[in-house]
Amino acid sequence: MPQHSVTITPRFYETDALGHINNASIAAWFEVARITFVESLSEAGSASANSWILASLKIDFIAETFYGSDVIATVTGATAGNSSLTITCEMSQGGKLTVRGTAVLVHMDPDSKSPSRIPDGLRERLVAD
Amino acid sequence: MPQHSVTITPRFYETDALGHINNASIAAWFEVARITFVESLSEAGSASANSWILASLKIDFIAETFYGSDVIATVTGATAGNSSLTITCEMSQGGKLTVRGTAVLVHMDPDSKSPSRIPDGLRERLVAD
Amino acid sequence: MPQHSVTITPRFYETDALGHINNASIAAWFEVARITFVESLSEAGSASANSWILASLKIDFIAETFYGSDVIATVTGATAGNSSLTITCEMSQGGKLTVRGTAVLVHMDPDSKSPSRIPDGLRERLVAD
Amino acid sequence: MPQHSVTITPRFYETDALGHINNASIAAWFEVARITFVESLSEAGSASANSWILASLKIDFIAETFYGSDVIATVTGATAGNSSLTITCEMSQGGKLTVRGTAVLVHMDPDSKSPSRIPDGLRERLVAD
Repeated sequence: MPQHSVTITPRFYETDALGHINNASIAAWFEVARITFVESLSEAGSASANSWILASLKIDFIAETFYGSDVIATVTGATAGNSSLTITCEMSQGGKLTVRGTAVLVHMDPDSKSPSRIPDGLRERLVAD
Repeated sequence: MPQHSVTITPRFYETDALGHINNASIAAWFEVARITFVESLSEAGSASANSWILASLKIDFIAETFYGSDVIATVTGATAGNSSLTITCEMSQGGKLTVRGTAVLVHMDPDSKSPSRIPDGLRERLVAD
Repeated sequence: MPQHSVTITPRFYETDALGHINNASIAAWFEVARITFVESLSEAGSASANSWILASLKIDFIAETFYGSDVIATVTGATAGNSSLTITCEMSQGGKLTVRGTAVLVHMDPDSKSPSRIPDGLRERLVAD
Repeated sequence: MPQHSVTITPRFYETDALGHINNASIAAWFEVARITFVESLSEAGSASANSWILASLKIDFIAETFYGSDVIATVTGATAGNSSLTITCEMSQGGKLTVRGTAVLVHMDPDSKSPSRIPDGLRERLVAD
């Protein structure tokens, strides 16, 4: 699987009154990691956010995340079914694991708006080094 | 001008680490007030968010807004130019004025994507009691 | 378990470029349902968002959610462990199930910042009709 | 005045159903530019977001901002009054000016929660090259 990490600089408005980053912002960051990962697998111009829907999301909050230092979100696994793609992700801040997430995406045919088989080119890049 | 108020219940994630509602959330609430106001002026089915762009936004933060009690956002004025619509809004929480805002919207032709004259029907409803 | 539902009016900025409500906004709505549920169980003045942290979040997106009509978020289950509280929630829009979520909260001692047993009063209200 | 720019990578959830970046997200980005600018002027450890409140915000939306390429937010001016600091900012995407903003911050005494004179050290750094 290709290595994929994104650096996320927390923004002040992503904090909440508990003084840390709100859980919904972390859900949003996970989306950033997923979308950029899938874009990196796609042929130039051939894929878009439009091709995938999110079926399921699971996030374990291992430690609080704070404003003031960068977060590294790394895709740690990606497994393709017929039309589904399960992506796991870990986030860390200051070297400490903060978040572990799993998302199930479904590849959609934009015309019929129904699930469609993940293209072979994308599958091949998924298992490449 | 038709009376128009919306009640906004602050959501916890709209707070920030200063313990109050973040300014960007208030910008977003102002959008709620504007969009519902413009929808209320439009003939059923004839208007949509697609018909307007936001050209300018000004917000004065008179007092802090907190999580835990409702905010009332009231449109206090609306003046139509040829293609522009200037909307003023006040927000209050617990009877106290917290926010005063002004937005300039521009009516767009969705096909040409250029400014277009605000329809007469909407103008008439704007000056009706 | 006490009945608990909240009505959420989608806000325009919670949509994304796919034309529906973004998944992170739905995570945020789930927080609204959880927090108001826990507040409803607490004695007046005795509990606050400060007493709980979110350990885990799972959301199944059953159907797309759209701007333009209200969403009902209903707490469908709540099970207390020693310091943990597992809350399940369903959201529907226009009578159609759109989201099913599970969250695990942990009751915290605000002083020691470590998990602490859920108070008996709250446990009793949890199993009351 | 010290040069200050931040690069902001638009996140997918910051789009809205009109297919561009929502205005409230741009208000939030402006906060990122302001906060990092004020932090850059402050002595290490001496300043924090807690020292300032936002009194007023004005944003002109010159052109739409889209997902998919970075935005550069540059502080173009900063003028100190007694306790107020007026900051102007421009954002551009792909070399095109998209946003022009002005914010008025007020320096607060964290203890009395009332406006307090901007410290001399910060004033000096404000007019330094």
